[in-house]
Amino acid sequence: MAEIAVLGHGVVGSGVLEVLLTHRESIARRAKEEIEVKHILDLREFPQLEYANRFTKDFNDILQDPEVRIVVECMGGLEPAFTFVKACLENGKSVVTSNKELVAAKGALLLEIAQKNNLNFLFEASVGGGIPIIRPISQCLAANEVSEIAGILNGTTNFILTKMIREHMGFQEALALAQELGYAERDPSADVEGADACRKICILASLAFGSHVYPQQVHTQGITKITLEDVAYAEAWGGVIKLIGEVKMLENGRLAIQVAPMFISRESQLANVDDVFNGILVRGDATGDVVFYGKGAGKLPTASAVVADVIDCVKHFKARKYLFWEDGKPDYVEPFASIPGDFFVHVKSQGDSAEAFALAESVFPGAVRIIRRDESLGEAGFAVKAISISGLEEKLAELEGRGAKVLNQIKISDF
Amino acid sequence: MAEIAVLGHGVVGSGVLEVLLTHRESIARRAKEEIEVKHILDLREFPQLEYANRFTKDFNDILQDPEVRIVVECMGGLEPAFTFVKACLENGKSVVTSNKELVAAKGALLLEIAQKNNLNFLFEASVGGGIPIIRPISQCLAANEVSEIAGILNGTTNFILTKMIREHMGFQEALALAQELGYAERDPSADVEGADACRKICILASLAFGSHVYPQQVHTQGITKITLEDVAYAEAWGGVIKLIGEVKMLENGRLAIQVAPMFISRESQLANVDDVFNGILVRGDATGDVVFYGKGAGKLPTASAVVADVIDCVKHFKARKYLFWEDGKPDYVEPFASIPGDFFVHVKSQGDSAEAFALAESVFPGAVRIIRRDESLGEAGFAVKAISISGLEEKLAELEGRGAKVLNQIKISDF
Repeated sequence: MAEIAVLGHGVVGSGVLEVLLTHRESIARRAKEEIEVKHILDLREFPQLEYANRFTKDFNDILQDPEVRIVVECMGGLEPAFTFVKACLENGKSVVTSNKELVAAKGALLLEIAQKNNLNFLFEASVGGGIPIIRPISQCLAANEVSEIAGILNGTTNFILTKMIREHMGFQEALALAQELGYAERDPSADVEGADACRKICILASLAFGSHVYPQQVHTQGITKITLEDVAYAEAWGGVIKLIGEVKMLENGRLAIQVAPMFISRESQLANVDDVFNGILVRGDATGDVVFYGKGAGKLPTASAVVADVIDCVKHFKARKYLFWEDGKPDYVEPFASIPGDFFVHVKSQGDSAEAFALAESVFPGAVRIIRRDESLGEAGFAVKAISISGLEEKLAELEGRGAKVLNQIKISDF
Repeated sequence: MAEIAVLGHGVVGSGVLEVLLTHRESIARRAKEEIEVKHILDLREFPQLEYANRFTKDFNDILQDPEVRIVVECMGGLEPAFTFVKACLENGKSVVTSNKELVAAKGALLLEIAQKNNLNFLFEASVGGGIPIIRPISQCLAANEVSEIAGILNGTTNFILTKMIREHMGFQEALALAQELGYAERDPSADVEGADACRKICILASLAFGSHVYPQQVHTQGITKITLEDVAYAEAWGGVIKLIGEVKMLENGRLAIQVAPMFISRESQLANVDDVFNGILVRGDATGDVVFYGKGAGKLPTASAVVADVIDCVKHFKARKYLFWEDGKPDYVEPFASIPGDFFVHVKSQGDSAEAFALAESVFPGAVRIIRRDESLGEAGFAVKAISISGLEEKLAELEGRGAKVLNQIKISDF
């Protein structure tokens, strides 16, 4: 019998209980031991539940129970989750978490404590919900140098963009619908401003390249400035707009990492990842492109990933899983302004669209014009190749100096 | 230092050496031990290679070397691979293989021997080449009841179908091109007749549902009868034709398993898996649909999957990986004739197409007509719902009795 405790009985925590109870027998068979939830930490009370008597409001009931060898953290947020998880690892308890904010902010430190104490710290559910991604990157791709990871990592923004693309709904209307359907929270900023995707790409980057990347090191841009005009230009160009978390190892040994809306070609395997789904592309030198696709959030998908980690923990009490990265290094992340790429630019100026493009072309020689349906007077869209952000911004300033208004600039992806 | 031996220096075997040598340092770091190939078994000689002195033609050099703890089998085919692998497992050596024919025919037996001797028998590379799929199914989805797996499991046939769909190339012409490009062998029957896909769906079914399914239990149909007319009907219906290996748990506890070309809706995540790529959809009660996508074959992708298994083996000399299924059970597979589904039917009869469809409709009330461009005189295509194979064949015989010629019938997928 393996005794565990669950911190937090919210969406994911209650899902963990549900999965453990529903699949009790098959889980015991797979873990080769029965798994019993001895304590559940929550400040609320749930008297109607059959396991109501296992609730506690005091974390010390869990920390000081020597029978509890695995603690599952599903509280979310940095505190008190961090304090509790750290205390568990320092007191001989392995930890499984679904908390991406915690792993993105404190992963290296917690992995180090786990390693010192010969314990497991597992977090498959922190990225991609029920999609297996942490384990495949760390194990299956072990004989492979990963060069790039790019993913649609946030279901809420993907739902909003899908509505904008397919039904020409405006951003605000699509956001309101997402809130109505329970896909977006009342304060949607962590999703729509890109912070959630940023935490996830930090975790994947840390894992794939071996040193911790912190969210504050990553240039992060959400989808609040994406307009239906941009969506139409993407379509005319031959693709769609998706919010992408991307990390790439540069030849100078630094990481080019960012979260931003990007033009994705219709041919890309990420172009058809729609609605609340997530898709993650891992590019390796031996495997080529491997893509993982599925529901990136939700009670049961996330809970099943948590429980799979618990099962793995139970099976490996003596053999620590190899999952590790070092703390971050100075100068590990390439300054955002230096990252090169292709871009779509959307401008407006005096005269008609042909004149607007002619002006743009005089500043960006070789720019390729993109014409959308129903272009308004003086509006022009075009693609420019292989330019750094600082180079782009310099030229956009020049364009504005010459009377054009720059409405938007969006990265064009190369996957 | 972990000493290993490699059986077979063909495409995959030489790829394993290449990956081990190219990534020597990072692999040692991940395995926490250096991995050294001590022997390579091959009847040919490779005097120009820097590791030429490690070749042997005598399997006993490997079997009787107590320093070799892991044997990598990349010979392919059932014999002598089976005899060698069995001998290794019976003599205390863990085995990693890329040989789908071996695993599909002898998996349960070899897993049992491995378990008895507390050894690992790993075969990530046997399905999906470099796509991680065996491990995600067995571990990450451990807290999940898998209800269905459907996959594009053979890159050669997918390449041929993609050429037929996109470039309207005929089957023979597309096959010839695949051979020219090295995607198909001179004798392409194992690919185009479905045997390769059959072995892979057997391995996935055995793993996901716990009892061995043997290839001879599985109704297998290739793509040799698919015509450009069928492709055009699929397009008119709203999708594409793909060769699918599918297994589903029925309510009666039996598996509905088959390999067949199917109509796939354009909305399906498998519809855009093109060229030599593979895509595998795993449907679970908690995770929903998870899809794995990537290159399903090729020297380096397959070799990197083999080496990842070797690394896992080295890290788990003492802790056996949990990977197991029992031997097959009688009546475990639903008789093919009883499996229900939706079907596309393509007929030809006297008169014009409307008359041909009217005749079809009199036999299949509720049939939905599908009209392709350039339909020839008397040709009709239609979809019928929820019918067993035996029910379908009975009605098709009736239709033929009434003067129509049945040109083809193709399953319509429900994923």
